[in-house]
Amino acid sequence: MAAVYVAGVGMTKFGKSSQTLVELFCEAATSALSASPIQEVDALYIGAMNPEEFTGESNIAAQVADALGISGLPALRVETASSAGAAALHAACHAVASGYYRRVLVLGGEKMTHLSTSAATRILAEVIEQQERQCGATMPALAAMITERYRKRYRLSRSHLQRVLCLVAIKNHLNGSRNPYAQFQQPITEEAYLSSKLVSTPLRLYDCSPITDGAAAVILTAEKTEVVISGLGQATGPVGLRERKSFTSFRATRIAAERAYRMAGISPKEIDFAEVHDAFTPFEIISTEDLGFFPAGKGWRAAEEGKTAIEGELPINPSGGLKSRGHPVGASGVAQVVEVVRRLRGEAEAKLKREPSRALAQSTGGLGTNNLVTILERSERPQAQNPWAPAPARSKPLQRQKSAPASVSEEGRIETFTILYVTPDGFLPPLALALIRDRAGQLIMAQGEDVSHLKIGREVYLRQLDGSYVFTVKSHLLKVREALKQLLRRLPSLPAGGKRPRSRKES
Amino acid sequence: MAAVYVAGVGMTKFGKSSQTLVELFCEAATSALSASPIQEVDALYIGAMNPEEFTGESNIAAQVADALGISGLPALRVETASSAGAAALHAACHAVASGYYRRVLVLGGEKMTHLSTSAATRILAEVIEQQERQCGATMPALAAMITERYRKRYRLSRSHLQRVLCLVAIKNHLNGSRNPYAQFQQPITEEAYLSSKLVSTPLRLYDCSPITDGAAAVILTAEKTEVVISGLGQATGPVGLRERKSFTSFRATRIAAERAYRMAGISPKEIDFAEVHDAFTPFEIISTEDLGFFPAGKGWRAAEEGKTAIEGELPINPSGGLKSRGHPVGASGVAQVVEVVRRLRGEAEAKLKREPSRALAQSTGGLGTNNLVTILERSERPQAQNPWAPAPARSKPLQRQKSAPASVSEEGRIETFTILYVTPDGFLPPLALALIRDRAGQLIMAQGEDVSHLKIGREVYLRQLDGSYVFTVKSHLLKVREALKQLLRRLPSLPAGGKRPRSRKES
Repeated sequence: MAAVYVAGVGMTKFGKSSQTLVELFCEAATSALSASPIQEVDALYIGAMNPEEFTGESNIAAQVADALGISGLPALRVETASSAGAAALHAACHAVASGYYRRVLVLGGEKMTHLSTSAATRILAEVIEQQERQCGATMPALAAMITERYRKRYRLSRSHLQRVLCLVAIKNHLNGSRNPYAQFQQPITEEAYLSSKLVSTPLRLYDCSPITDGAAAVILTAEKTEVVISGLGQATGPVGLRERKSFTSFRATRIAAERAYRMAGISPKEIDFAEVHDAFTPFEIISTEDLGFFPAGKGWRAAEEGKTAIEGELPINPSGGLKSRGHPVGASGVAQVVEVVRRLRGEAEAKLKREPSRALAQSTGGLGTNNLVTILERSERPQAQNPWAPAPARSKPLQRQKSAPASVSEEGRIETFTILYVTPDGFLPPLALALIRDRAGQLIMAQGEDVSHLKIGREVYLRQLDGSYVFTVKSHLLKVREALKQLLRRLPSLPAGGKRPRSRKES
Repeated sequence: MAAVYVAGVGMTKFGKSSQTLVELFCEAATSALSASPIQEVDALYIGAMNPEEFTGESNIAAQVADALGISGLPALRVETASSAGAAALHAACHAVASGYYRRVLVLGGEKMTHLSTSAATRILAEVIEQQERQCGATMPALAAMITERYRKRYRLSRSHLQRVLCLVAIKNHLNGSRNPYAQFQQPITEEAYLSSKLVSTPLRLYDCSPITDGAAAVILTAEKTEVVISGLGQATGPVGLRERKSFTSFRATRIAAERAYRMAGISPKEIDFAEVHDAFTPFEIISTEDLGFFPAGKGWRAAEEGKTAIEGELPINPSGGLKSRGHPVGASGVAQVVEVVRRLRGEAEAKLKREPSRALAQSTGGLGTNNLVTILERSERPQAQNPWAPAPARSKPLQRQKSAPASVSEEGRIETFTILYVTPDGFLPPLALALIRDRAGQLIMAQGEDVSHLKIGREVYLRQLDGSYVFTVKSHLLKVREALKQLLRRLPSLPAGGKRPRSRKES
């Protein structure tokens, strides 16, 4: 089993591009090869989430090999939703470690900006569990519901939470403003953040990573270079929100990180900086907890205290992250590694407080459903004899009886909620969405009849409507009923001999 | 580097299914696990071509892990168009060989029959190069053009070619009739073949594999079992027909096979039987040549002489092949390996003349653009110390200037052609399509103005129309002109003082 090294990295500028997806891949590949001692490769691994629907292209691996003039070489595409780039990198590492290939070109990329926001949102939402999607849930809506739950669990006031998220956004935009490859090159102010539109309460536009075109490239080799890949870990998590034990942590990140640390033989304390998947600002905070950098529920405080700033004790997303560098979904997992390698080599623009020697990249597929962690380090440290960890704990496949919410009881309680302002096609904003726990303990995603009176823990009535679920807050209903009763009492009594007797006869 | 063994195989019945894609995957996995000594796995690898467009599902790997009740384990999807299943298997082999995983569940699957033929054809056609797709070319149309070229090159008459293709179809349907997992369970007659409708000349319905639902599963392990994977090879080829040096052979299959034979340390003569990608009957013949079983141009004769029949000297597709077993695109590469393992273990229904100990599976992505070869054998033979071949010859990526057919000359010659009777949406049948070589030596796909007078080598006029190309056969045009001239000569001469002088004045 061979160790796997990085021989070269490169990427396109992220943003809105007039190039085709294949051209973006070629540009990233060329930039990595031109800066690498290795010019020839044995195989091509591509990470892309959904070129079929984003650009109408199928067979992308053969197309890119063809365009690069290396048709004849093996080429394949790996997909794990928005972490596809990282998954392609890991699969390529396995191939190099097996000895089957010695040099592999890994590309990640996506082309998205030519589509309308609603079209891109719809495609991205296909990763969401079906019942939740049917209610109109989008990725920002689910992220918002997780955020509301985090706020409640760790007792942050709404304004305090907003201040923390704003600090993360400001930090990442500041970092991105120093990164020539970033989509957004300008720092943002607190005023700009606060005046940005609400996407899904409590998340604003500046809490969400943008829609982006771009590609990134990493050349892997079995021959020693100055940067080695020392830890790899991957894990999946339940697709539906309603099947999770925790809404404030991603179990897939925790398992993936534990595997990567074990393989690298280190603890989270030995990481000098990290690129994490901040598709939404609260996810950066949750990731820093799941990765073991800060205890659960303390990530927000670390962000507030500046620990994760570029000059802090553990810089997070010194490149600007997905938030500011941009998020061409299939590219992000590879781009994170490009940024890490540049910084480990001392090539990044803005410097950290101390010269880093070891870093981590964390990529998320879907709503934390397929996450990968990669640890890279300067290769001065002698590598372990066998850099590959023993196989992780095995699991026995056991086809589950899906907890089909068929017999949902008619009452329940709000576990978390959001008001979605940027809705997918077919849903009018504002759209109240909540995860309801019914009397039997089942979780059901449902649309609210009204956007007011929403609060975690509130009792609701639930009913089925067109295959989906609708909820009404009880206290709201009780209040309405009370108001109506009072109104009735104040009305003059009806004259005797009204319509009632006649209608009785008719029936 | 560890050797990789097969611990268990399983598959769904192929055909039209009422199950969802995720349910098909689960059924295949359960059937493989229930028949395997291994019940627990370290990771899940999935091959699927296009669940995004076939079924509207994204994030399929996490979804299947979730449904299998193994959420938490790593899961990824691999895609190389219609060879996706084989590519997933190869990537999983690398992971086991690297030591990172010891036991991996590999699944291949696709759900297609719920779509109309024209919708499925459109999705499948996305693998085709853009300019060729714009002319209305489908997979059967391109396969037909390759077949016509093969016929011409190896001097087969039309009726002779038809007889050979018919023999391949009859053989594969006979084999499939003995395979309980096959979509078609009935043998076919020559009459049925000849009366089946023309899809794209010279290919009939019975020359084309069907649209199918299904999934297949293989469990890989580093622990010794009775079947070992001894050879792996993959290669890409140019996407466009117009960029190929040969139309009668797939270079990608040749390179992939050469790599697999080298790794296994054997020659083609040592293969006892093979499952090859007969998406179209002529492709079975071409594959037997590309795999080195028969010399180029002699595959048709081997088929005619019964050498590839189940009782022949080198049985090809004893399972019925894609033709009769069915072709759920992402499943086929895995299903081939399932069939091979069953037969190597002596579990297949119909027996070969002699007990096989070594077999080959060949899978094709797109129109021969991403092909894989897998060699499996009974593991009695001691394995080589290092079963992994040295890395194949490297290639230097060099971004190609796409030979944009911008300045196409106005005359050319037909390289190959077809008349397409089952056209994609927006094109009316019958549609004449030809690959034209222009005066400058460039190849251009073009639509014919007329379906008559088509022949390889014929001179044509070419013109651009709405971003596509249209050709007219010269001899046809000359004949028309001659006929018009004769008609003119027979007409009584016009009276003097016609309209000509007046119109001249006006101009």
